[in-house]
Amino acid sequence: MEARNAPLCWLDGKYLPLTEAAIPPDDLGLQRGYGIFDFLRVMGRVPLYMEDHLDRFYRSAERMYLSVPVGRDELRAIILHLTEVNGLTVSGMRFLLTGGSSPDGYTISSPRLMVMHQPLNPPPAAWPEHGYKLYTHDFLRQMPEVKTIDYLMAIRLQPWLRSLGGDDILYRHEGLVTECPRANFFIIDQEGRLITPMRNMLHGVTRLQILQVARSICLIVEERDLPLSEVLQAKEAFISSSTKRIIPVTRVDDHIFTSSDVTRRLWEAMMAHETGWISSRSHG
Amino acid sequence: MEARNAPLCWLDGKYLPLTEAAIPPDDLGLQRGYGIFDFLRVMGRVPLYMEDHLDRFYRSAERMYLSVPVGRDELRAIILHLTEVNGLTVSGMRFLLTGGSSPDGYTISSPRLMVMHQPLNPPPAAWPEHGYKLYTHDFLRQMPEVKTIDYLMAIRLQPWLRSLGGDDILYRHEGLVTECPRANFFIIDQEGRLITPMRNMLHGVTRLQILQVARSICLIVEERDLPLSEVLQAKEAFISSSTKRIIPVTRVDDHIFTSSDVTRRLWEAMMAHETGWISSRSHG
Repeated sequence: MEARNAPLCWLDGKYLPLTEAAIPPDDLGLQRGYGIFDFLRVMGRVPLYMEDHLDRFYRSAERMYLSVPVGRDELRAIILHLTEVNGLTVSGMRFLLTGGSSPDGYTISSPRLMVMHQPLNPPPAAWPEHGYKLYTHDFLRQMPEVKTIDYLMAIRLQPWLRSLGGDDILYRHEGLVTECPRANFFIIDQEGRLITPMRNMLHGVTRLQILQVARSICLIVEERDLPLSEVLQAKEAFISSSTKRIIPVTRVDDHIFTSSDVTRRLWEAMMAHETGWISSRSHG
Repeated sequence: MEARNAPLCWLDGKYLPLTEAAIPPDDLGLQRGYGIFDFLRVMGRVPLYMEDHLDRFYRSAERMYLSVPVGRDELRAIILHLTEVNGLTVSGMRFLLTGGSSPDGYTISSPRLMVMHQPLNPPPAAWPEHGYKLYTHDFLRQMPEVKTIDYLMAIRLQPWLRSLGGDDILYRHEGLVTECPRANFFIIDQEGRLITPMRNMLHGVTRLQILQVARSICLIVEERDLPLSEVLQAKEAFISSSTKRIIPVTRVDDHIFTSSDVTRRLWEAMMAHETGWISSRSHG
């Protein structure tokens, strides 16, 4: 077998090394920012919560009037094939669907699908002692419930975030917090209830798992509008994402969170849940 | 001289046929919709209002914390070189600057510049009798004063627009109209004044020329917030863009405009202005 410098990816119907993949400049993703994607973490050979990610991917595509050039069974097969041949320990699988090459630079004609598979730093295997500092910014994403490629504001705010020494941005709008650009947001209130926004944000796959696990350890869960004022009176806060699982939040703007007991209990339950999930798929 | 299938473009420091140009999939334009551009119309060998477009391009880049990999003199030289070698009759020059290839898929490291030059349908040489039907949609673009590649909403609304038989979308927000996705919007009120929005929209290069020409033919010009209610009581309406120059508007939602006398006078003055502008550069 030849040495391979780059993992294989899948583009326009073909498997090829990622380093050889190239997108024509007339792609509507590049010219007009028109595209959606999804991203999942692969642990060994097991793509984590793959069906939930596929659900969301096809839902995003439909919301943007993009037809996916392959059916769900074929996309699943591509993901599993890449997982098999690339043999990465911990990895990320990104499936990107753009408006494709457009004759007039504006009209969707033939959407382009690309599946990229790359090594990923695994989320912490031990409880992440060092939590995140979040700073709020007033912004509501366009079509926040669709996983589009629009991260204009998030990337533009990075210099501002760095100047504050922050780790991530927390969007707020009309007094309500919604989400971080790539993570969902939760609080534990003074009564120990788990509260998280449920609209004007992306419904994370990890978020859904967390809510199930939270109920399984008898936490009261409230999915509802979450005023910033309530965040600043909460006992704990944390964020979740596919790559990070759960990270405690130590600060939102000027407010410091000193406690993380419930978050830690939830992190431990999520670790057990994830391990069980992977184990049942590995041997199934 | 060899037959050439595609005009030359400029990418990452090199001239090459557009058909051979390819963008690495890790580009932040494609992965995160992070990029800006500008676009100008070239008439023969004359790039129309080039310095205004360069002004705006470098301003957009600065607003998005993107450093342009070539200086203004070099970019101007690239544009003029492409104009010369491609020898197109009427053409469009698009300069696109993205976040470039990013090691972590999120952080700007080395912005990518691409200059594309392609044939363009010229704007009507005779007064465009058939005006546009516009339909309003409540939306405010993020960073509307920067020429980003974000056209998510505009492209997503195309099926809706077609279902109404409309020609373009007119954005409104909180009762004020702002712009079309790729054109500026103007009305002529019952007193014959020219009124056009001046904030929460992209400041078009053609728009600026129109305001100058309008003053030169003694129209009263008002740049200010423009309520939709005022549009629906206006005498005339029109849009402007680099590719279309001026197109009269015959309809906004349910309101029909039957008059276009002042618009036509302005169109004629703009034609003369453009012809003079080109002529002075061709022989200069």
